[in-house]
Amino acid sequence: MSNILRVGVAGLGTVGAGTLRLLQTHADRLAERAGRRLVVTAVSARDRRRDRGIDLSGVRWYQDAAALAADPEVDVVVELIGGSEGVARALVEAAIARGKPVVTANKALLAIHGTALAQAAEAAGVPIAFEAAVAGGIPIIKGLREGLAGNAVSRVYGILNGTCNYILTTMRREQREFGEVLAEAQRLGYAEADPSFDVDGIDTAHKLAVLTATAFGTQVDFEHVHVEGIRHVSALDIAYADELGFRIKLLGIARRTEHGIEQRVHPCMVPVATPIANVEGVFNAVVAEGDFVGRVVMEGRGAGAGPTASAVVADLVDIARNRAVPTFGRPSALLAPPDPAPMERHRGCYYIRLMVVDRPGVIADVTAALRDEEVSMESMLQRGRAPGEAVPVVLTTHETEEARMRRALARVAALGTVLEPPRTIRIEDL
Amino acid sequence: MSNILRVGVAGLGTVGAGTLRLLQTHADRLAERAGRRLVVTAVSARDRRRDRGIDLSGVRWYQDAAALAADPEVDVVVELIGGSEGVARALVEAAIARGKPVVTANKALLAIHGTALAQAAEAAGVPIAFEAAVAGGIPIIKGLREGLAGNAVSRVYGILNGTCNYILTTMRREQREFGEVLAEAQRLGYAEADPSFDVDGIDTAHKLAVLTATAFGTQVDFEHVHVEGIRHVSALDIAYADELGFRIKLLGIARRTEHGIEQRVHPCMVPVATPIANVEGVFNAVVAEGDFVGRVVMEGRGAGAGPTASAVVADLVDIARNRAVPTFGRPSALLAPPDPAPMERHRGCYYIRLMVVDRPGVIADVTAALRDEEVSMESMLQRGRAPGEAVPVVLTTHETEEARMRRALARVAALGTVLEPPRTIRIEDL
Repeated sequence: MSNILRVGVAGLGTVGAGTLRLLQTHADRLAERAGRRLVVTAVSARDRRRDRGIDLSGVRWYQDAAALAADPEVDVVVELIGGSEGVARALVEAAIARGKPVVTANKALLAIHGTALAQAAEAAGVPIAFEAAVAGGIPIIKGLREGLAGNAVSRVYGILNGTCNYILTTMRREQREFGEVLAEAQRLGYAEADPSFDVDGIDTAHKLAVLTATAFGTQVDFEHVHVEGIRHVSALDIAYADELGFRIKLLGIARRTEHGIEQRVHPCMVPVATPIANVEGVFNAVVAEGDFVGRVVMEGRGAGAGPTASAVVADLVDIARNRAVPTFGRPSALLAPPDPAPMERHRGCYYIRLMVVDRPGVIADVTAALRDEEVSMESMLQRGRAPGEAVPVVLTTHETEEARMRRALARVAALGTVLEPPRTIRIEDL
Repeated sequence: MSNILRVGVAGLGTVGAGTLRLLQTHADRLAERAGRRLVVTAVSARDRRRDRGIDLSGVRWYQDAAALAADPEVDVVVELIGGSEGVARALVEAAIARGKPVVTANKALLAIHGTALAQAAEAAGVPIAFEAAVAGGIPIIKGLREGLAGNAVSRVYGILNGTCNYILTTMRREQREFGEVLAEAQRLGYAEADPSFDVDGIDTAHKLAVLTATAFGTQVDFEHVHVEGIRHVSALDIAYADELGFRIKLLGIARRTEHGIEQRVHPCMVPVATPIANVEGVFNAVVAEGDFVGRVVMEGRGAGAGPTASAVVADLVDIARNRAVPTFGRPSALLAPPDPAPMERHRGCYYIRLMVVDRPGVIADVTAALRDEEVSMESMLQRGRAPGEAVPVVLTTHETEEARMRRALARVAALGTVLEPPRTIRIEDL
């Protein structure tokens, strides 16, 4: 083993610069932990002149990221460019082809090409490490893949997107609407100018797909993740959630069911007394349920320069020590093929909010529609009266099947006294 | 690498039997995760005839645990006997002397002999793995040693003893006194017949000493852990804590200070809004604060057959894959020697409960005593009146030094109107 691990870093945005800063700040302690020095020998970024507050003297610069992989003085490639295609993918594939280990924070790449990359890396005999791709600084990939290796995991779920959690937390605390809080988050730099990746749940779905493969030892199956974002969550629903003893969180949830593996991303009502309900602001948390260990919760910062750099460097230390593990915990030939449970077969409880005309008999029509689809009601709330006008009615159901719920809601929506499309939020049994 | 890792298990109590059950239940999945089969070839326990509900056919039986280490068909020794001396220590030393990796759940052994064992193991070129020694199924050792390897940790703390947390949780929920709840916990099997190890904080101190060494890369320094248990926590203090917005938890806390490394175990007032305040019943949690990652919280079951077996087996999988790491994160020659911060130099806020005669001027005397030692008061509560009789008075202070606080309390205790020794509980800034 050489006494130096020569690192090439592609992408010098927030995370890349943070990674370089960490490697410089803790050079000595890392040498002790890793058994060898971690030295950045090459970097790649678009703009060479930008001041990133880090010393790049003596470090080779590449305009073309993929060229990093070919540098004979780069032992390991750190990919911090992002995106499932293009430069990032080309670089990772080039590194593997040259037999070089890869560290990546790229959830989109892994969600779409994870299985193929795992196979290629295994064939080349090199690791792909991706602690930074899911939940930032929380060592959840290591936790699942190694720490809980002795368990059959039945369910893994979490708050995987800090932007959404920040928005939902702020909406609740300040009793404000989504659009307003999103605009503010954009001004503060907590949300992107194009927020769709975050607020429409895609980023969470990418991370969930990676988490699922790691927890269950399956091929990555992003395609079958059911995805809903948080745009339709209203301040009114958040207020009702409070009243019912819930918090609304955007969760990514994967579980084994009799119909296959269910992967879904959507706003959830979670009981206030659960650990996940109290994860607020930009924090992330992941919960795993194993047959021997029971429930394990890990919480921390899910994004940002420091936490993400912490995860990237942990992977580099593992690589420096030749501490390898198959990409998703088992040899890629043994990764179970996709076995998606149809969302229609999902079973759970539901929160339904209707805007109805305040008139006798309306509730009876609604409950009859539910009864006809064998959906059993658990509670009903109609605060305030406004005879003849629109008022909100909130229902919660006992456990039922998604398909039944959808049929029942179609009937309810068709009632003349129901003025807007029903809003539903699934209630999670955590 | 042989295709089989032959495991010798010493100690077939709850955890030992659980470990064997896990190894049998998940034999196939473990072979995938570990790259080889994990097979128990030998065991040791006192009573051969006891029915443990596990199949021991074909497994060699040793009356003398240390003899396990000499068995040529044992590649790795799992020590689940417990205790810092005697058989457990002899077995671990014998295994290392024979160049065999050790997996242990023994916090007492590591707290007392951890540094020497790390040196011996390093000299012999074998790992000592101890995930199960701290916080049961929570992969906190791996998390700190590998997952947060890129961080300078400034503080690590946690709820490390499920028995104490169960007792404190039950006292609060049911508004009952310590003795009564302890007796019930003993009847239910949640507390030992001799509860001292748990309720006097010793078990927590053992675990904290191990956690400190792992988080900070120092020699294990159990000797300098300041230890107080929970026997003096009263239902009254718990009620006041509620009123002040705190929960009372027995924490083990280690932090770097300007005076050295502070290690302490004592009941703490923790703000209800912190994650640790909401860890209830037999659950454990550990919080680590790193300079890059920020705050990471891990929560799960801290004891019991399943969780502890999960941790033991995770270590076995690492060993099967030759995934080694220095015992406490750095080579033993680099482990920093003890640098204990004297408890007298501790700085923090304090909760003080006095039983005083309800008479004008009493509070003035108390506050004068605090002022004379330059302890600054933050709040004062005297609910209820009973002129001429004993009433509780509760004070909280701003940050001050422990030595000052002790002097102030000595003055207060000497006042004729203060009827019982003052009770203090430190308020943690989490």
